[in-house]
Amino acid sequence: MLSESQLKDIEQSPYKKDFPLLAKNPGITFLDSAATSQRPEAVLAAERDFYETMNANPLRGLYRLSVAATAAIEDARNHIASFIGATDEAGKPQGSQVVFTRNASESLNLVANSLGRSVLRPGDEVVISIMEHHSNIIPWQQVCAATGAKLVYLRLDDDYAITQQEIEEKIGPKAKIVSVTHVSNVLGVENDIPAIAARAHEMGAYMVVDGAQSVPHLKVNVRELNCDLMAFSAHKLGGPMGIGVLWGKSEILDQMPPFLTGGEMIDSVTETGAVWAPVPQKFEAGTQDAAGSYAFDADLTYLEGLGMERIEQRERELACYLCDSLAALDYVDVIGPRDGSRHVGAVAFNVHGIHPHDVSSILDGSGICIRAGHHCAQPLLSYLDVQMGSTCRASVAFYNDKADIDRFINGLDTVWTIFNG
Amino acid sequence: MLSESQLKDIEQSPYKKDFPLLAKNPGITFLDSAATSQRPEAVLAAERDFYETMNANPLRGLYRLSVAATAAIEDARNHIASFIGATDEAGKPQGSQVVFTRNASESLNLVANSLGRSVLRPGDEVVISIMEHHSNIIPWQQVCAATGAKLVYLRLDDDYAITQQEIEEKIGPKAKIVSVTHVSNVLGVENDIPAIAARAHEMGAYMVVDGAQSVPHLKVNVRELNCDLMAFSAHKLGGPMGIGVLWGKSEILDQMPPFLTGGEMIDSVTETGAVWAPVPQKFEAGTQDAAGSYAFDADLTYLEGLGMERIEQRERELACYLCDSLAALDYVDVIGPRDGSRHVGAVAFNVHGIHPHDVSSILDGSGICIRAGHHCAQPLLSYLDVQMGSTCRASVAFYNDKADIDRFINGLDTVWTIFNG
Repeated sequence: MLSESQLKDIEQSPYKKDFPLLAKNPGITFLDSAATSQRPEAVLAAERDFYETMNANPLRGLYRLSVAATAAIEDARNHIASFIGATDEAGKPQGSQVVFTRNASESLNLVANSLGRSVLRPGDEVVISIMEHHSNIIPWQQVCAATGAKLVYLRLDDDYAITQQEIEEKIGPKAKIVSVTHVSNVLGVENDIPAIAARAHEMGAYMVVDGAQSVPHLKVNVRELNCDLMAFSAHKLGGPMGIGVLWGKSEILDQMPPFLTGGEMIDSVTETGAVWAPVPQKFEAGTQDAAGSYAFDADLTYLEGLGMERIEQRERELACYLCDSLAALDYVDVIGPRDGSRHVGAVAFNVHGIHPHDVSSILDGSGICIRAGHHCAQPLLSYLDVQMGSTCRASVAFYNDKADIDRFINGLDTVWTIFNG
Repeated sequence: MLSESQLKDIEQSPYKKDFPLLAKNPGITFLDSAATSQRPEAVLAAERDFYETMNANPLRGLYRLSVAATAAIEDARNHIASFIGATDEAGKPQGSQVVFTRNASESLNLVANSLGRSVLRPGDEVVISIMEHHSNIIPWQQVCAATGAKLVYLRLDDDYAITQQEIEEKIGPKAKIVSVTHVSNVLGVENDIPAIAARAHEMGAYMVVDGAQSVPHLKVNVRELNCDLMAFSAHKLGGPMGIGVLWGKSEILDQMPPFLTGGEMIDSVTETGAVWAPVPQKFEAGTQDAAGSYAFDADLTYLEGLGMERIEQRERELACYLCDSLAALDYVDVIGPRDGSRHVGAVAFNVHGIHPHDVSSILDGSGICIRAGHHCAQPLLSYLDVQMGSTCRASVAFYNDKADIDRFINGLDTVWTIFNG
């Protein structure tokens, strides 16, 4: 149950003032946070703060600026570990399990190329789901082609769920790697990762999770998910662009060969070979974006100040309202569960007879931002036989409110009237 | 010849005021720009401007914010192309030849893995130089091990130069790829890329240039260098961290297979395969750092306002003064040419009997920032038989002045006195 002040907050968001773009542009209704979020002032200020007070190349420097830059990266690692529950028995965050990448796509490429190429043999199976983002499909297609492994898809039932029966049928003894998204970027549905991970581990397979759409919205805990590796991006939860994360269990990261090579990721180099640095540096070639890590750290502090449980609860309310509002329009088909509480952030839909691109473009005339297209999930749209291979998608974050959704629904009425008025 | 006002400017830099960290911290003497540069206010302001006025996921969106974010990336591509002379016969910048990566290391990994794995056969040769940064060594060691190609090193004469004889001896008919740094990050010397490229092309090999240490300091023109591909990083010339560039000739980029795969780099995906997008998107998987690209664009505008010819001239004056000042100390050995005009930005040296780490740490006590260590160039230091495999390195950018160098030299006197006083 929401308190009275929470009910009021959900009508008119008290959080937009923290986001300069939203605060300065009240005419913008931003419903595309599943693509990228807006950034709080704390992140913008931190980015500048880094460059004004500790700008230097981290890791190798012995002077104070460089030591501060190094600390900024290491503090961010620990904060991220703490944020996703990557702690030891005593609750100490395991920053060394956090590898910085450019984005979640690079994290998944790293896993496919490093872990995939080292463990997959001809006849082995990699199991993903039909609702994966292209970034969790193509790297596996490539590594399967290179190693002779087979790519197997978990499919959905009529209620957009991966059933226990499907899990047991598809994840068999040949499975070596299972890589599944926690939350679908199109349907918004959450998969039962603990159930999939249990089966994967029973079969001796590694469990990889694409957390790009869950870490921004749910209180994610890698130990509760029981996964071995998880990828996500800072830019989808308020952090800066250009920062991705790969979290992994230490014993697995330790065994994985490096992917990108070069400066900073070695202990020593001769003309004929190199000795790798320990994890996580082993996976971080070249100068890292220390400013971005520092800004992401500030972002997590901001989010924790609000509380992820509260963010999760608020976003569920908003997603329900969004889904119910859409389902109430007789000219709209929701693509995904009708139960709004099953939508984490995103609701996909189509307007009868109007191309999603037209819907999005006309809404833009009223400052309403939604996504239209294949959402980098073409196999899913083919599987669901979605007309034109394209949908609209509206997605919420905690800074949205019901007023945003009302403006969006009014906008859809206008679209409908333009075409059918 | 410098004018009177230029002579005055070189004593006391008029540019520090443009760099917030330097302006706010007059006690800091920053002589580590070869590791990373300081950032001008224009870059910090642009980063915020992006997030406040056009923050959205680029490329796939149909609303104005996303269109603006997309334009920010494409404008930056064209600006970068123009900056490095990647123009067509009519002078039009070829933005599609500019691929964004995370840093120069990733750019070189992309080339080694994509071009290298597709063209190298057992017995082929990859030719690099002994003065390469690890980022231009290890990726080639890895790809040679994977393909059966042989890694060949161009060596230096006693004057730290790669002679024409060495070029002709080492780059033979078996050479398929030649990858050489334009400027050494340790010695500061500039290699004769046009001569190396001419020989590479004569033998039918691709010419790759590591421009990480040249693009910040020289007016680099890829057509004059006659190279096929060039890598560099934004963060070494005032741009933000987290942005690297790979420039390549269109016909070569077109033929190269993708490296990282996932969202945004495809035309279409099915359960069993994918069709790649055209260059440059083919090489850019996942959400790109549009804010970083936009900030780098602003940085180039700032640099062009000063003029790269003027920057180059000023830095040569400063490097000469730095080299001459060091050479005048009888307790210092300069590692590299004694002719200061041959140093682009960087001068490596050692203090007799004092470990470089101690030199750097003691200088830090006076706010003087220099680098100490192997500078990610261990094969070079082994080849030169440098004691302890480690050197000090001071490096200048245009925002430095002679007063910085004088403070540094005074600091060295203090170091010497502490150990020998």
